Amino acid sequence: MSKPVTRREFLNLIAATSGTAAVLGITSALGMIPSSTQASVPDLLKLSSQRKKAVILGAGIAGLTVAYELDKAGYDCTVLEASHRAGGRVFTVRAGTLIDEIGNPQYCEWDDEPHLYFNAGAARIPSTHSNVLHYCKELGVDLEMFINENKAAWIQDDNIMGGKPIRNREVSTNVRGFMAELMAKAMKDGDLDQPFSDDEAGIILGLIRTFGDLDANMKYTGSTRAGYASGDYVTHTTQHEMIKIRDLLQTNALRGVISDNEGETGPMLMQAVGGNDRIPYGFVRQIEDKIKFRALVTSVELNDKGVTVEYDYDGQRHSIDADYCFNSIPSHFMNGIKHNLPAQYAQDMKYIRRGTAMKGAFQAKERFWEKEGIYGGISWTNQGIRQIWYPAHGIHKQKGVILAAYDYGNGMPFTRMTQEQRIEMMISQGEKVHPDYRQYVEKGITIAWHRMNHMLGCSARWRVSTPEEERIFANLQAPVEGKYWCIGDQISHHTAWMESAIQSAHFALAELDRRVRAEVASA
Amino acid sequence: MSKPVTRREFLNLIAATSGTAAVLGITSALGMIPSSTQASVPDLLKLSSQRKKAVILGAGIAGLTVAYELDKAGYDCTVLEASHRAGGRVFTVRAGTLIDEIGNPQYCEWDDEPHLYFNAGAARIPSTHSNVLHYCKELGVDLEMFINENKAAWIQDDNIMGGKPIRNREVSTNVRGFMAELMAKAMKDGDLDQPFSDDEAGIILGLIRTFGDLDANMKYTGSTRAGYASGDYVTHTTQHEMIKIRDLLQTNALRGVISDNEGETGPMLMQAVGGNDRIPYGFVRQIEDKIKFRALVTSVELNDKGVTVEYDYDGQRHSIDADYCFNSIPSHFMNGIKHNLPAQYAQDMKYIRRGTAMKGAFQAKERFWEKEGIYGGISWTNQGIRQIWYPAHGIHKQKGVILAAYDYGNGMPFTRMTQEQRIEMMISQGEKVHPDYRQYVEKGITIAWHRMNHMLGCSARWRVSTPEEERIFANLQAPVEGKYWCIGDQISHHTAWMESAIQSAHFALAELDRRVRAEVASA
Repeated sequence: MSKPVTRREFLNLIAATSGTAAVLGITSALGMIPSSTQASVPDLLKLSSQRKKAVILGAGIAGLTVAYELDKAGYDCTVLEASHRAGGRVFTVRAGTLIDEIGNPQYCEWDDEPHLYFNAGAARIPSTHSNVLHYCKELGVDLEMFINENKAAWIQDDNIMGGKPIRNREVSTNVRGFMAELMAKAMKDGDLDQPFSDDEAGIILGLIRTFGDLDANMKYTGSTRAGYASGDYVTHTTQHEMIKIRDLLQTNALRGVISDNEGETGPMLMQAVGGNDRIPYGFVRQIEDKIKFRALVTSVELNDKGVTVEYDYDGQRHSIDADYCFNSIPSHFMNGIKHNLPAQYAQDMKYIRRGTAMKGAFQAKERFWEKEGIYGGISWTNQGIRQIWYPAHGIHKQKGVILAAYDYGNGMPFTRMTQEQRIEMMISQGEKVHPDYRQYVEKGITIAWHRMNHMLGCSARWRVSTPEEERIFANLQAPVEGKYWCIGDQISHHTAWMESAIQSAHFALAELDRRVRAEVASA
Repeated sequence: MSKPVTRREFLNLIAATSGTAAVLGITSALGMIPSSTQASVPDLLKLSSQRKKAVILGAGIAGLTVAYELDKAGYDCTVLEASHRAGGRVFTVRAGTLIDEIGNPQYCEWDDEPHLYFNAGAARIPSTHSNVLHYCKELGVDLEMFINENKAAWIQDDNIMGGKPIRNREVSTNVRGFMAELMAKAMKDGDLDQPFSDDEAGIILGLIRTFGDLDANMKYTGSTRAGYASGDYVTHTTQHEMIKIRDLLQTNALRGVISDNEGETGPMLMQAVGGNDRIPYGFVRQIEDKIKFRALVTSVELNDKGVTVEYDYDGQRHSIDADYCFNSIPSHFMNGIKHNLPAQYAQDMKYIRRGTAMKGAFQAKERFWEKEGIYGGISWTNQGIRQIWYPAHGIHKQKGVILAAYDYGNGMPFTRMTQEQRIEMMISQGEKVHPDYRQYVEKGITIAWHRMNHMLGCSARWRVSTPEEERIFANLQAPVEGKYWCIGDQISHHTAWMESAIQSAHFALAELDRRVRAEVASA
């Protein structure tokens, strides 16, 4: 009895908790795991004599995937990219990088060293994202392990423990202890749906005891898993006092602590060595001469010959004719681009909303977190910055770059601030987690994705699904006149992942291929 | 109300589960976390004119730590090491390595590439092991992330699911679902010790729901966290059928699945880039001229001048006089070495038993596990090989080295086998986890620590503690006549970790330093 799972269930749960900092915990927890460990790359019919032309709008991961695969299959491809760089929301900031946030352009002034970078967009590669991994392998992009959950990192919340940061392991150990006690109680008192044999019950009680580190009476009285209060490996030790569940309940971080190792953010995760923009630039290396940067699309016209795209380059109007068009331009920009797509299609495009998201980062003069025993992973706080991420690379080097703020979908208090105010807010809130923060961090950068040039939004937000939303999704996913496709993570059930962008490209390519094969067969 | 925690509690629990494959799960779960993130390196008084001589027996981590620190403080050090290499049970096997197991010597014949190595001894560095990390930094040993828990890896047990391997994430998701249902039941029916307010109960129910991915009726009906049965990110999906807890209970792997991310093996962990023997050899680089390899100690005599150690080198008897002696020779060898240690001390040394442990590894022609979506981490089986570890490094390269067996303390069925039989057993048991295993793996090596030359045992085993055991530990930890110390993880509350060996060295050094300072003050 498999039950169907749609993005609706996912979004229902989000809706149920929206407006709280728990949203990320929930989305992580619900991270969807694809059924196949095989990449979905379609086996495109290789074109020989009869060349076909494709124009691809946008050099993000989806557009690059289409161009790379079509180029290999013998298509004549042109990629038009509005900005000065490839990758879209796969964006790595390092010394000299321009962050082209509208109204807040910045150049990054960090030291020019390979480990001093910041993935301002896509940061984590789950091992279940077989298409991303497929291309990393094929394009020679080196990968290394990424750490998401770190039990040594901090939980800081003004609503618990007097605002004092405590280790993730203290929170998780004590919550598990409480949970295990509850389970033991149910085994004793509960009216179980199906009774267990003595043997089974014994195994379950053993599991529960192991889960929570309960004592022989199935009581939780604290655990060394939370760390020692004193002592070490050669002298006797005392454990930390246990923390009562009541004293922990008022932090939203709890949900993250108990679910962040599940689903898509669960172990294990990877990152590209040197920065995740190595992935889009892996594609770019293969098709560099097919990409026109700073080419701003002004018109998309479907016509008898195929598709004609007009674009501005250096103040001049240019035009390109192609048989096919693959469009990853954020759908909300298509309002302002002249086009002759069907009225219903145009209407449907307006349905897709874009999320907001702000990330900030500092270069740290010293890797102060390592002195606190933190190597990679995330600290959580109820402050506006929400998270501090420590790098999983460059261990024990002098300097490091940390993510100092990651706010998403919550009114975006940072948006109206000046850059100086954003940085001051990142520092002063970070000081609640690391009291000596200010002396270490320097050269802050921030990036508000909903104000980034050629973006004006983070990932697409499909809302609580309805039959009408199903119709819209299907309409936008289908080709128009067999020659125009919407691509990008915006047309996936699981936005904001590179994997989704690639799968959207493969979906469109497979559709195209069926048409081309049918044409060839009937010719 | 802190409760004291000793190794006794730890060992009681082990005793309670001994003879089952759950032992590792338990020891992991109970992994002790030190209270301090600061290394314990003692600040030794620097000797100037008045040189003192120290002889250190054994060039494992403990002996190297003592020699390195004393050398820095101006002591005249000699390290006598019986074998041809440093590191003891910190041993990395790569092309050309001699595995000097008695009765089964092997040279490793893997390809000579930096990523093709195997940590046959110490493999994992927890971020809480501040002394190991301190020396890695000081000695310039590069570190990278290590993956222990991988939800994509396999659980295979002949007693569940008809012996078919299932993903760790399927097991953990379904167990969590069951556990969450139990908790919800206790919240509804249980006679809770302390009632919660409606607000608190609501938060707890939300947590429980998140923990187990329960439906709105607080029932577990399966979860996408266990993966899709079909579909992907652009087409509709169905989830896997849920697995009933009853169908999972008969595997010992369950305990590992629910506790392996706690305590010492919890996130995050590290390894030395290129092999963990980079750590002992980091010390060796600093004190290379102080170490005599192939120097077999034959006599230790405490006398009026200090300590005289006799040793064999190249068939010749040699002798060295020193003021102090630090001895990391496995205590069970001291029976066969002439010495004049006090009778009670000699008797106490015999109390320490050594564990057994066997590891095996293959070079794989292809990284077949990556095709299955596995990058690092551990698969568990109820076969004798128990575990398969996949490398966290060398991602997407052609070949890789995997741990193919890790058996410890369970009668050691491998010991009586020939090397060919061991390898065949590793292959045939591995085929239950990876059906096409045999075609990929080659050039197997095995290492039985209880038969390794100059070892004849894995880590020391302190048994269930008694007042008598406390006395023995204290007696062996204290110096003899103020000039002889037992060192090594054998004299720690938490054997089998590099951190313990280092802390034992620091403990002895701090003791020595107090004596030297007192001498200087009274001179």
